[in-house]
Amino acid sequence: MSGSISRREFLASTTLAAAAVLVDPRQARAQSKTQPYADWKMKPVMDFSKSPHAKLRQVPVGAVTVTGYWAARRKTNVWSSIPSMREELVQHGRMTNFERLEGKSKEPQKGPVYSDSDIYKWTEAVAYVLQSENQPELRKTTDAQIREIVAVQEPSGYLNTYYVDDHKPLRMQQHTQEVGHELYCMGHYLQGAIAYYRATGDATMLNAGIRFVDEFLLPNYGPGANQKPIVSGHPEIEMSLIELYRTTGNKKYVDLAGYILHGDKRWTIKPSAIVYMYCGIPFPERTKLEGHAVRCMYACCGATDYYLETGDPAYWKTLETLWTDLVSHQLYVTGGVGARAEGEAFGDAYELPNARAYGESCAAIGNMMWNARMLAATGEARFTDVMERALYNGINSGMSLDGKLYCYRNPLAFEPATGDVIRNPWYDTTCCPPNIERTFSSLPGYFYSTSKDGIYVHLYDTSEMDWHLEDGTGLKMSQKTEYPWKGDVAMTVSPAKPHEFTVYLRIPGWSTKNTVRVNGSAVEAAKPGEYLAIRRTWSAGDRIELAMDMTPQLLRANPAVMEDVGKAALQRGPVVFCMEGLDQSAPDHGLNLSNLRANLEGETKVRYEPEMLGGVAVLEHPGSVVAGQNPDLYRAANAGATEKKGTNLTLIPYYAWANRKPSPMQVWIPYTEV
Amino acid sequence: MSGSISRREFLASTTLAAAAVLVDPRQARAQSKTQPYADWKMKPVMDFSKSPHAKLRQVPVGAVTVTGYWAARRKTNVWSSIPSMREELVQHGRMTNFERLEGKSKEPQKGPVYSDSDIYKWTEAVAYVLQSENQPELRKTTDAQIREIVAVQEPSGYLNTYYVDDHKPLRMQQHTQEVGHELYCMGHYLQGAIAYYRATGDATMLNAGIRFVDEFLLPNYGPGANQKPIVSGHPEIEMSLIELYRTTGNKKYVDLAGYILHGDKRWTIKPSAIVYMYCGIPFPERTKLEGHAVRCMYACCGATDYYLETGDPAYWKTLETLWTDLVSHQLYVTGGVGARAEGEAFGDAYELPNARAYGESCAAIGNMMWNARMLAATGEARFTDVMERALYNGINSGMSLDGKLYCYRNPLAFEPATGDVIRNPWYDTTCCPPNIERTFSSLPGYFYSTSKDGIYVHLYDTSEMDWHLEDGTGLKMSQKTEYPWKGDVAMTVSPAKPHEFTVYLRIPGWSTKNTVRVNGSAVEAAKPGEYLAIRRTWSAGDRIELAMDMTPQLLRANPAVMEDVGKAALQRGPVVFCMEGLDQSAPDHGLNLSNLRANLEGETKVRYEPEMLGGVAVLEHPGSVVAGQNPDLYRAANAGATEKKGTNLTLIPYYAWANRKPSPMQVWIPYTEV
Repeated sequence: MSGSISRREFLASTTLAAAAVLVDPRQARAQSKTQPYADWKMKPVMDFSKSPHAKLRQVPVGAVTVTGYWAARRKTNVWSSIPSMREELVQHGRMTNFERLEGKSKEPQKGPVYSDSDIYKWTEAVAYVLQSENQPELRKTTDAQIREIVAVQEPSGYLNTYYVDDHKPLRMQQHTQEVGHELYCMGHYLQGAIAYYRATGDATMLNAGIRFVDEFLLPNYGPGANQKPIVSGHPEIEMSLIELYRTTGNKKYVDLAGYILHGDKRWTIKPSAIVYMYCGIPFPERTKLEGHAVRCMYACCGATDYYLETGDPAYWKTLETLWTDLVSHQLYVTGGVGARAEGEAFGDAYELPNARAYGESCAAIGNMMWNARMLAATGEARFTDVMERALYNGINSGMSLDGKLYCYRNPLAFEPATGDVIRNPWYDTTCCPPNIERTFSSLPGYFYSTSKDGIYVHLYDTSEMDWHLEDGTGLKMSQKTEYPWKGDVAMTVSPAKPHEFTVYLRIPGWSTKNTVRVNGSAVEAAKPGEYLAIRRTWSAGDRIELAMDMTPQLLRANPAVMEDVGKAALQRGPVVFCMEGLDQSAPDHGLNLSNLRANLEGETKVRYEPEMLGGVAVLEHPGSVVAGQNPDLYRAANAGATEKKGTNLTLIPYYAWANRKPSPMQVWIPYTEV
Repeated sequence: MSGSISRREFLASTTLAAAAVLVDPRQARAQSKTQPYADWKMKPVMDFSKSPHAKLRQVPVGAVTVTGYWAARRKTNVWSSIPSMREELVQHGRMTNFERLEGKSKEPQKGPVYSDSDIYKWTEAVAYVLQSENQPELRKTTDAQIREIVAVQEPSGYLNTYYVDDHKPLRMQQHTQEVGHELYCMGHYLQGAIAYYRATGDATMLNAGIRFVDEFLLPNYGPGANQKPIVSGHPEIEMSLIELYRTTGNKKYVDLAGYILHGDKRWTIKPSAIVYMYCGIPFPERTKLEGHAVRCMYACCGATDYYLETGDPAYWKTLETLWTDLVSHQLYVTGGVGARAEGEAFGDAYELPNARAYGESCAAIGNMMWNARMLAATGEARFTDVMERALYNGINSGMSLDGKLYCYRNPLAFEPATGDVIRNPWYDTTCCPPNIERTFSSLPGYFYSTSKDGIYVHLYDTSEMDWHLEDGTGLKMSQKTEYPWKGDVAMTVSPAKPHEFTVYLRIPGWSTKNTVRVNGSAVEAAKPGEYLAIRRTWSAGDRIELAMDMTPQLLRANPAVMEDVGKAALQRGPVVFCMEGLDQSAPDHGLNLSNLRANLEGETKVRYEPEMLGGVAVLEHPGSVVAGQNPDLYRAANAGATEKKGTNLTLIPYYAWANRKPSPMQVWIPYTEV
């Protein structure tokens, strides 16, 4: 493939690196707790500061203090979700898996092959908390946990609590690489280790991760004749290797990620596995999103990271093709992805069932992570629109309001009579809960980016930023808003000294009419779905007032989405709404939503309910209730219209569903005649 | 459970039977090729002649000669499907599995655990052919094949080619019973053996089956303290045991079926398996259709057979509940059942996806088989309506017009761009092809039943019946019709001598206006969905003229079927229609069906195309094509109506889809605004 690294280049980098480390591994081990890398303080979630093909560079988590809408959710995350999830992890043996190997526990191995990754994602969630705030108890707990983790690293550098004892012969076998999640676990390990290093400067976990890669992985696995192949059964290692490069400056990790993204023809992989795993062929040969949705999204993240470092045009072309596939055929209105429970997979184009939607929380998170990277590459607001859609809806729905229950699936319609329970405190495959936790704790890191010529504002919420422009000029910004319930944002821009630069203000694609004022004067009309560039000499205290259009919007899906024919969904601002049976006032409707119809005309009324569901906007939309519904499964279409009576339909934000007693729910509401 | 057999009664019957046989097994074996049972000639598919709770008794396959619509399909079945399927079976090692155990082949075991059943179902298909017509070559081939089968029966009576050698220790273990299809295979063996005996009088296969049950199964498995439990992992054995009772007169087989239908508490079965297998708890404790659709339908067949012999009211109550569930929540308009590919299972109530419909051919057949039994119990036409719907549509679709390709899934919408290929010559799980073959070859046996007071006419097609009333009076009947393309049927009723009895004429539920004349005189108006009872003294040559209403009907689904909101389907007579892209004449539609809309008003035109798809009615329905469709996945509902141009939609019978080049297909057509 054009632009991919040559085998010779690759071998040169890996062989040298391996040799360097292998001189004296004890020396490497002695690096623990030292800080041998570039300054760890105030680094972003993804550090694009030296990425040649990134147009934007994220502002770190610790530079943004959020006190508005997301503050409550983030507080719940820190004080309820993260501690209760640690209890669940401990209770389900995720730590005795490590303690057993240290001789401190006699418990048998617990949980599926990817159990270690749960601990690492939880560690990453903690790391972003520590980047935001001082939490000595949490720090102490996590430090101790990290000591248990690194203690089980083997002299070879290997570190995984599943592939030991009887399972040891399975290590890195082809079948294990395809289904065994060894490198997936190490990918999450590295992400957790990097975030923790950037939070604390403590490189204990990071150094052990580097040893895994340098001493165990690279000398033995790769494209060389004396190396065995790598197949990324569940993509994740790719993006973590590139972030490891961004942390250490060692380019060999980019090359290794490129090799993995390229696939290794020495191993024959079944076509169905190539689809399912979204790996095993060169990434630029992909033409559509398919297979396991989380694998696919994580592969796209890794491929975008690879593009950001290499500028490989074949990668960019493919990423654009896949993104168009996403927004044209595969994206739920909630920002979720992955239609099918079978294989947790993407469906065919336009296959977007509602009650049967899979929409795994992790896939929505992967979608946001991917779009954040695409945004960094381009500075284009179309990617931020997808990020925000996923964040407020398909990700936000994944955690209960009390922070202790999680969705694995995020369906767009639900009937409790099916016996399905959507929110649960624990899943044996508990990938989603700590994934949501790390997303919420890292969230301030997605608010702003810098560019060569200024600063980008991506997300709106009451908050303070304290950072600097890329030329080093200090810059504080503040936002005051009741977003997402109101569309007005009052911002201040305060450079350390008067300075000419551009403020790029995101105008959401859903906001059809917008006004922007700077120090009270109107700015030329802002276009939806673009960043409005305001270039001027800014002085401390300069004010920007943005007013977005929060008129509720009735949406229809493309006619090819056969399950949404004759149905509409309501969105207001970034929030997608749904009906729950228990809110409906229509007489005799029971809790049955199937006899309710939305009017296509008529005004949707909005009210804010501060005491309801943690404080939400509630919509009332004119509709009707079908009386005396025919119980037959099929009937003549000309049998005459069913009697209908006017009623109001009550909608709540989708993310807040299933936080009261079980009740039917639907996002897409029939509007057609019955 | 009320009405279930007592353990004491059961033990008495099984112990005696086992003892009797075990005196001298060689004597039993010596019975081969003798005809020790009641007269074998001209027996129906299901022999209800001594079933105390059957209101109707089927007229045998051999008594009805079909020369109309079904004749072509049945000819294809005999001359194309059955021979080519035998070639496929042989080629895929389904016979070397037997020959290996005789020392005649060195091939290893081939195919899944249920591979023997494919051969048995094929044998049953042949048996019904031989009941209809003289086919010496087919008889010779099948006789020889039966010799290979029975030759591998072990001295213990055991007969299964999978659970031998290394697999022998697995025999009848709980896990094997749950997932290993041992008794499922024997169930199909017995059905094939009984049909072959009734076709030829040759009891070779039947006797070996009886030995399996009497010598291997009954002495060792059952409710007794010295017996191990039975769990029917894939129901099938139940109905075959009851047909074995009907063949031999030995009541112990009914008792054994009852024990299996009741479940055995000595083994703990996972709740999910109880749902999936549709067994393991007393059948009368069931409240809905669920789990694996074929398992569920076959269990309902067995339970209805058990009711027909015992009259157990708890069974009947449950069967009525389940049937109401079927027609209210679970039945596709094509008569198919089983919404989900996952677990090949029933979905939730009203979960009837179209493109993702599973609708396994075997499940539609199971549905027909069940409804045929419910019809026998009651004489009520509501069951015949479901039978006919499944037969003409969801079963008929399962075999290509040339008889050599089969559907496993029968979706109600299809997009070839997904890469899915619906019709295939072979499936490694090849349950459906021979199942369709046995259904078509047995079809004449479903046309008529006798009752104490006369004769029931269930299905219409040009045909001759030569049988007798239950009082022994000879009766010939003929039908002349172009059904299902035209609604007129001219019948003659010719008893051997003038005789008073009732002709029960089925008036289909879909036929809203009907006229019936006897010898030219109008009979009181017939009600749709009922049998019209015409009691009189009939004399040879008496004429009945039935005119059914063949006006095409636009159907809507219950509003709770969320995927059919805003969509309509067209049915004419018993035939459900669909659109294939390649037939559409709308300009610029490509092959894309999603931009076509049906009008709810306007006349559907019908034309008969003798050269097309083996001769079919084609419908033209007024509709529109959407021009310049917005490619966005979501858009504002008030963005204005899309431009539409009038066009005609062309529809062909659903069963005939996918018989030309690949093309999109849909049964449910959006009628709503886009």
